[in-house]
Amino acid sequence: MNPLPHRVKLVDVGPRDGLQNEKQPVPAAVKIELVHRLQDAGLKEIEVTSYVSPKWVPQMADNHEVMQGIQRRQGVRYSVLTPNLKGFEASLADRPDEIVVFGAASEAFSQKNINCSIAESIERFAPVVEAAKAKGIAVRGAMSCTVGCPYEGDVPPSRVEYLAGLMKGIGVEHVGVADTIGVGTPKKVQAAFDATLKHYDIDSVSGHFHDTYGQAVGNTLAALEMGVWQFDASVAGLGGCPYAKGATGNVATEDVVYLLHGMGIDTGIDLDALIDAGAYISEQLGRPTNSRVARAVLAKRKA
Amino acid sequence: MNPLPHRVKLVDVGPRDGLQNEKQPVPAAVKIELVHRLQDAGLKEIEVTSYVSPKWVPQMADNHEVMQGIQRRQGVRYSVLTPNLKGFEASLADRPDEIVVFGAASEAFSQKNINCSIAESIERFAPVVEAAKAKGIAVRGAMSCTVGCPYEGDVPPSRVEYLAGLMKGIGVEHVGVADTIGVGTPKKVQAAFDATLKHYDIDSVSGHFHDTYGQAVGNTLAALEMGVWQFDASVAGLGGCPYAKGATGNVATEDVVYLLHGMGIDTGIDLDALIDAGAYISEQLGRPTNSRVARAVLAKRKA
Repeated sequence: MNPLPHRVKLVDVGPRDGLQNEKQPVPAAVKIELVHRLQDAGLKEIEVTSYVSPKWVPQMADNHEVMQGIQRRQGVRYSVLTPNLKGFEASLADRPDEIVVFGAASEAFSQKNINCSIAESIERFAPVVEAAKAKGIAVRGAMSCTVGCPYEGDVPPSRVEYLAGLMKGIGVEHVGVADTIGVGTPKKVQAAFDATLKHYDIDSVSGHFHDTYGQAVGNTLAALEMGVWQFDASVAGLGGCPYAKGATGNVATEDVVYLLHGMGIDTGIDLDALIDAGAYISEQLGRPTNSRVARAVLAKRKA
Repeated sequence: MNPLPHRVKLVDVGPRDGLQNEKQPVPAAVKIELVHRLQDAGLKEIEVTSYVSPKWVPQMADNHEVMQGIQRRQGVRYSVLTPNLKGFEASLADRPDEIVVFGAASEAFSQKNINCSIAESIERFAPVVEAAKAKGIAVRGAMSCTVGCPYEGDVPPSRVEYLAGLMKGIGVEHVGVADTIGVGTPKKVQAAFDATLKHYDIDSVSGHFHDTYGQAVGNTLAALEMGVWQFDASVAGLGGCPYAKGATGNVATEDVVYLLHGMGIDTGIDLDALIDAGAYISEQLGRPTNSRVARAVLAKRKA
């Protein structure tokens, strides 16, 4: 077991990964306000939007408006999802600090989700990665289904190692190990990281856990114990689970911050301000927060 | 770090600790059916009821009826809470296998909750423990507020060590380390166990975590890593949090079983049958389950 990290960097993926999976459309002004509140709370990286056809993801059709509307803060990194070269080129006018490309560790998921093999999907990203690096834009690779797949079930670590190798091969500098359907438990998550670490060092990997089965906080602890110090999370647990209606999606940023601060690990985040940001977007969506920390703190404030 | 245990014993405290904190009254027949479903699912210990004045806890006024109505199964232990000698004597007709006595690690909580000091409260239990042992009935000591207190805030491990010493002094054989208000995080929970282990060995302690701040699964992992192999949990996460309305209470047994099975740790429990037991009582209470595992599995069954 490695010593726990003293500092953790959290990426709030709520505005993109979260809101993309919410049913109701959210006005650009609300998204901009959410980003402002997140950076006010101390987030140093925010996944803002994606550049994908509005035919497929209408929730992100306002990508330019949102990116142009943000009052950027020094030291904050604004990342965007770019599914192909066309999307990447469309994003350039909005000056993203980082682009996110993606691939699945499950062949069935890759086929069903983007209609091509894992290897083909990564090959298609090669020119995107090259173009980004030529412009000095950072590249993160999101590896989905690294523990389980809605079609295949358990995903063996060897497939994660394979995907990480492909990502490395096209020059991706940092990869996220995602438990996309939240079925992971600590040992399985550690195995997915072990597989990834065959190609990446500990400073170039992050965890991305969904809380569908209530395991995300435990999985975060398991990753911390390996020395992982970068994690994605979604304020208010925004975004449901497209594979099980009514189930929760991304782990709430508030719950991860509570874990980390409780262990004396610095995040630079003001938990109360973060809870306020989550309350704001939950109110806009007209639904209760998925963060247990937020529920408890808001209940105590009322009392 | 100790090797993880291969086997874990779970005590379902839903019928007592859970239902006691639910608002609506539950008929004895429903409680009996719940106990039957829990033992059918493979639970080997169930905290059934308490013998306390119905003036104070009207939800448990049917203690005799419930205990007498259960069709007992060989190998299952039926435990009951006995707050004093009178309660203990009242319980004898119902042949409990184990009685539970209790004390707080926080002086303020002890005063507010039972109107006496920690030392006084434990002294009062001495004759109860003696009488139980004379009759061959096992005794468990529930230690509340071992991490945090709603009145005092953080509770230092030295207070837990003090309480554990008092419990040991009156002959309590096994103690539960409870995070009563769910504020604990892994290192704090481990410190509470370290303090307890000054007086008890690893086979004589159990964890009792509330999920108010979403940390219970992580705290369970942290305790497992110390070698703790006995835990309380509450099916469907029964029981709210009396200190924060709308917040969750006991960790759901389903979520703990999912964690354990995911790590290859045996519990003897059939998760699907347990989820059905939780769905049964949630329906009787007319409220959604607090188990994320149950929510995800039930959503998938519907799909």
